[in-house]
Amino acid sequence: MTRILVVNPNSTAAVTDSMNAALEILRTPGAPEIVCRTLTGTPAGIETQEDVESVVMPTLRYLRENSADAYVIGCFSDPGLAVCREAIKAPVLGIAESGYLTAAGLAEKFGVVSIKKGSIARHLRQIRMLGLEGKLAADRALDMGVLELADRKRSIARIIEVGTELRDRDGAGVLILGCASMGTYRAEIEKALGLPVVDPTQAAVMRAEGLLRLGYAKIA
Amino acid sequence: MTRILVVNPNSTAAVTDSMNAALEILRTPGAPEIVCRTLTGTPAGIETQEDVESVVMPTLRYLRENSADAYVIGCFSDPGLAVCREAIKAPVLGIAESGYLTAAGLAEKFGVVSIKKGSIARHLRQIRMLGLEGKLAADRALDMGVLELADRKRSIARIIEVGTELRDRDGAGVLILGCASMGTYRAEIEKALGLPVVDPTQAAVMRAEGLLRLGYAKIA
Amino acid sequence: MTRILVVNPNSTAAVTDSMNAALEILRTPGAPEIVCRTLTGTPAGIETQEDVESVVMPTLRYLRENSADAYVIGCFSDPGLAVCREAIKAPVLGIAESGYLTAAGLAEKFGVVSIKKGSIARHLRQIRMLGLEGKLAADRALDMGVLELADRKRSIARIIEVGTELRDRDGAGVLILGCASMGTYRAEIEKALGLPVVDPTQAAVMRAEGLLRLGYAKIA
Amino acid sequence: MTRILVVNPNSTAAVTDSMNAALEILRTPGAPEIVCRTLTGTPAGIETQEDVESVVMPTLRYLRENSADAYVIGCFSDPGLAVCREAIKAPVLGIAESGYLTAAGLAEKFGVVSIKKGSIARHLRQIRMLGLEGKLAADRALDMGVLELADRKRSIARIIEVGTELRDRDGAGVLILGCASMGTYRAEIEKALGLPVVDPTQAAVMRAEGLLRLGYAKIA
Amino acid sequence: MTRILVVNPNSTAAVTDSMNAALEILRTPGAPEIVCRTLTGTPAGIETQEDVESVVMPTLRYLRENSADAYVIGCFSDPGLAVCREAIKAPVLGIAESGYLTAAGLAEKFGVVSIKKGSIARHLRQIRMLGLEGKLAADRALDMGVLELADRKRSIARIIEVGTELRDRDGAGVLILGCASMGTYRAEIEKALGLPVVDPTQAAVMRAEGLLRLGYAKIA
Amino acid sequence: MTRILVVNPNSTAAVTDSMNAALEILRTPGAPEIVCRTLTGTPAGIETQEDVESVVMPTLRYLRENSADAYVIGCFSDPGLAVCREAIKAPVLGIAESGYLTAAGLAEKFGVVSIKKGSIARHLRQIRMLGLEGKLAADRALDMGVLELADRKRSIARIIEVGTELRDRDGAGVLILGCASMGTYRAEIEKALGLPVVDPTQAAVMRAEGLLRLGYAKIA
Repeated sequence: MTRILVVNPNSTAAVTDSMNAALEILRTPGAPEIVCRTLTGTPAGIETQEDVESVVMPTLRYLRENSADAYVIGCFSDPGLAVCREAIKAPVLGIAESGYLTAAGLAEKFGVVSIKKGSIARHLRQIRMLGLEGKLAADRALDMGVLELADRKRSIARIIEVGTELRDRDGAGVLILGCASMGTYRAEIEKALGLPVVDPTQAAVMRAEGLLRLGYAKIA
Repeated sequence: MTRILVVNPNSTAAVTDSMNAALEILRTPGAPEIVCRTLTGTPAGIETQEDVESVVMPTLRYLRENSADAYVIGCFSDPGLAVCREAIKAPVLGIAESGYLTAAGLAEKFGVVSIKKGSIARHLRQIRMLGLEGKLAADRALDMGVLELADRKRSIARIIEVGTELRDRDGAGVLILGCASMGTYRAEIEKALGLPVVDPTQAAVMRAEGLLRLGYAKIA
Repeated sequence: MTRILVVNPNSTAAVTDSMNAALEILRTPGAPEIVCRTLTGTPAGIETQEDVESVVMPTLRYLRENSADAYVIGCFSDPGLAVCREAIKAPVLGIAESGYLTAAGLAEKFGVVSIKKGSIARHLRQIRMLGLEGKLAADRALDMGVLELADRKRSIARIIEVGTELRDRDGAGVLILGCASMGTYRAEIEKALGLPVVDPTQAAVMRAEGLLRLGYAKIA
Repeated sequence: MTRILVVNPNSTAAVTDSMNAALEILRTPGAPEIVCRTLTGTPAGIETQEDVESVVMPTLRYLRENSADAYVIGCFSDPGLAVCREAIKAPVLGIAESGYLTAAGLAEKFGVVSIKKGSIARHLRQIRMLGLEGKLAADRALDMGVLELADRKRSIARIIEVGTELRDRDGAGVLILGCASMGTYRAEIEKALGLPVVDPTQAAVMRAEGLLRLGYAKIA
Repeated sequence: MTRILVVNPNSTAAVTDSMNAALEILRTPGAPEIVCRTLTGTPAGIETQEDVESVVMPTLRYLRENSADAYVIGCFSDPGLAVCREAIKAPVLGIAESGYLTAAGLAEKFGVVSIKKGSIARHLRQIRMLGLEGKLAADRALDMGVLELADRKRSIARIIEVGTELRDRDGAGVLILGCASMGTYRAEIEKALGLPVVDPTQAAVMRAEGLLRLGYAKIA
Repeated sequence: MTRILVVNPNSTAAVTDSMNAALEILRTPGAPEIVCRTLTGTPAGIETQEDVESVVMPTLRYLRENSADAYVIGCFSDPGLAVCREAIKAPVLGIAESGYLTAAGLAEKFGVVSIKKGSIARHLRQIRMLGLEGKLAADRALDMGVLELADRKRSIARIIEVGTELRDRDGAGVLILGCASMGTYRAEIEKALGLPVVDPTQAAVMRAEGLLRLGYAKIA
């Protein structure tokens, strides 16, 4: 049985738990085992660029020390993606790139729901890097306080509000949740907006499984 | 158990058999059932635009009359993709769009191996339509006679020749086989070129399974 | 004397009459004869993708059976354009592609006035396919009921409203009427907005005449 | 009867004669009168940027002093196009922009046949300005001496040579002659290459006639 | 000591004085001498395209007759840039191109503050020509009357208003002042908006100095 | 007197010496002091992605501990650029981004001379990230052995060979040396090819000085 290891580079187990819950949907009979792990000694959240960079080498080390058939880096900044991909034989997937690529196949234009306004420029750089800028409808931020974000109901209400703008004003035909830990909200948002919603962690694990099943582990 | 129906719009069962063989890799325990079917009363091969258009409504009819959890249209011209997607509730995937999207995630630039020079402009239109022109390294044709194409050894040798040009002159980091029925050649080409090779039929079935597993059937 | 045959793929003669009226401007002495015809046995309107696909082969058949020096497919979805162009020796023009190309020469950015919101994604695919996405200011829909649309005065008022947004908010320097049968409204809208307005049917017939006059019939 | 005035900004009457001959094809009964004129006191050829700029104000003056229903500036550098268009009420067309726009509608990618290598960067700037860079296959220069260029047979042979490269290596589906005075070669080149060839002067006059016939004189 | 000559192509000395004041910041010990000059016999302001073209040859003449190590054309329409660059051995810089290139390095997207709405299309053409359209957030006009523009306080207030829209609605991370004579407002606008603001004249002189210091005078 | 600190993230002093020599041209009276430093404890060369990532945090630490008015990261992979820019108040410049931006202003298309073929994909990602892919003519590798690279004469000969291809086959109008330590070769290559050549380290230091001189230190 193959195993996909999802690493949460921040040290907050609640985030890992949330990813784990959203991945339950992929734990079907015969499917690869999906294991979610939390790094230790890293920041509690990945907010600044320094947070991002500080987890790159720890993530690489963790992957080297924990064998799996494929790896997913569970942070929407894709920290360490390039280095892990080059240094590790098994497929390594980023959740942001996976979210963008999956959404690119679901509509003409995708909208990104970001947590903070400050990360929009970083997302744009990555979308450009992937050659997908032509598919971007817009990237809009929730800009909520920490307390509000912790409130599931309020978060979903705000995501629906921002998602409505992305759909009606910017022409998005699919939404990407720009965060590792909102995957369990998908169903409610999809129902409210009538649009497919991409949880980047689910998208990355599914892509990892696909690469394994199709035998790309030996090559890419 | 869910079922993915792969429809070969041309009436040549040998093409369907070839797809079927290439899909064997995805028939793992617990995975969706993959059924390949051949249309009847359609052209033996899809070469001209008239061939393409002539199978659109028959494909739609076939999908309507044969229920499945997801459908794959097994022809690199994606005939009827838009209409089936709009008219059918279940996910419908084209193999060309799936090949392009999958390859987009495997390298900075993809190369397309076409059978005939005459189809390159049609491919370009579709790549543009998907917003992926920036990812195209080049599209080069085998331009082989029918007899040669029937010869597996000669076909693979010619694909490797063209693939070498795509890799070394055009900078492709991944190749797409621009045809429904060359999937069983993948391993040999990958080995010879050291690049991942995308069989569009495999890519489409894997995407279909992913959409089903992640619950997009209800929305997209 | 050369003859341009304009085919309305839907079966509503009133639409054909409206195109015919808008083309009166091109019936000058010495100009090609312009004949407008209505298909029979096709949907009354082309709204869904199934409507589009269902008229493709009938349109091809009609062109084959009715000789002309050039053909125009009079529906903003350009149904059957690729197949007719490949199968017929004479030039075949789509009204949507003609509208986009003509508008591209009249301003830095063009705005599209669509009837229904649901067709905007389809337009975007075609604009991308033509390589003209960089020229698109925006595509906005009238979203009017059938009764209102039948009312010339109300329609023009709503087009002017939407056109004002395209001009002032989106920066469009020219408008394209995203429909085969609004050509007779052009003058009033141009006067109200101070922008050139492209009727796609007029644009297509003019392009057809140009190709004939310049002798491209023998080559393209 | 309407009148289109084609102005050759250089002072060489032989160039004007050549344009005039290529335009004969558009002088059909009922068509606008096409008059070709040569500026005086301007350079014998437009080769350097200083040549280009030196004819801008003389061209504007000439248009102001010679009334017509539409104007074509007969030089592939489109000198004075922006200023004449802004200052003159009647439509003013450039032959380069007209060549690019016409070719954009005839194939997925166009190739440009330039006289001199040194003008390729200038062409690229203009193609970008028009938003059409995605349609450019390549721009290749004849790089012939003056004497050779004067030899019709040699010129055509060299254009066919360069056109073959544009078609086979760069994937051009249509060629643009990057010069005002090679329009009479079109037929021979089209026959040799099997591709449509755009003479920019013919394309511009045809566009001018189209704008007049469709009543854009009052607006654009 | 090297000398950079900044030429104001319009004949209004007050504009030259304003540029001169904004350039004071670059007059540091050891830096090149920066001399600002006003053309005579040219329009008082460069507003229409005819104004632009009418100063091209006078600008070229002035540069030829006044030797310097590098030249800056001090008008946001970059009149005569191409011809001066080709005809003059020393580096010649346009302030618009310099503003765009400098801003491209300061944020993911730049916003342009234009004086008049009518110049936005002209700016777009130039930004496309430079290949930088992907970096443009938006271009918005002040659209103030002449009297208001003469009022420094009011102008700054309006620029801040427009800049706020460019920052918050369009996502601009840096602003470009689309005018030669607003450089002395930079500090106040930067303070109010918290964004870097590019004065194109300063940007051009700095680029000129850089090219000289790095020895590009001999080559480019 | 202001000070620009150039940090060589690898631990090979010879590379730092080479940069230092190439920067001599910018040490003019009144100019900022330019200091070049070598990190210790880092790899001898930055070749793999792991080399790149391993120097990110050490570079940030070094910048924090060594005050300067502006910083340049002297490695063509721009390691740590984003994090240093966010974490440090003073301007931080990458040599790769500076090379691309400087070259973008010197010709319509730039060519990149890479040391190794394996880094071309990484360069492409960064060029896309900057929104400059439309300016790229091509990126070609020297692919020389270590011994040959150490030989100045052989290196220059090979760069001229590759540069000739970039100029003549790919249409590059300016070359970028894709390496921190070839700046002293510039003059010989420029002379041989007749094209401007951008040394990225020189370009970055010049940009840094420009930002300081124009007062962007307080804002960007």
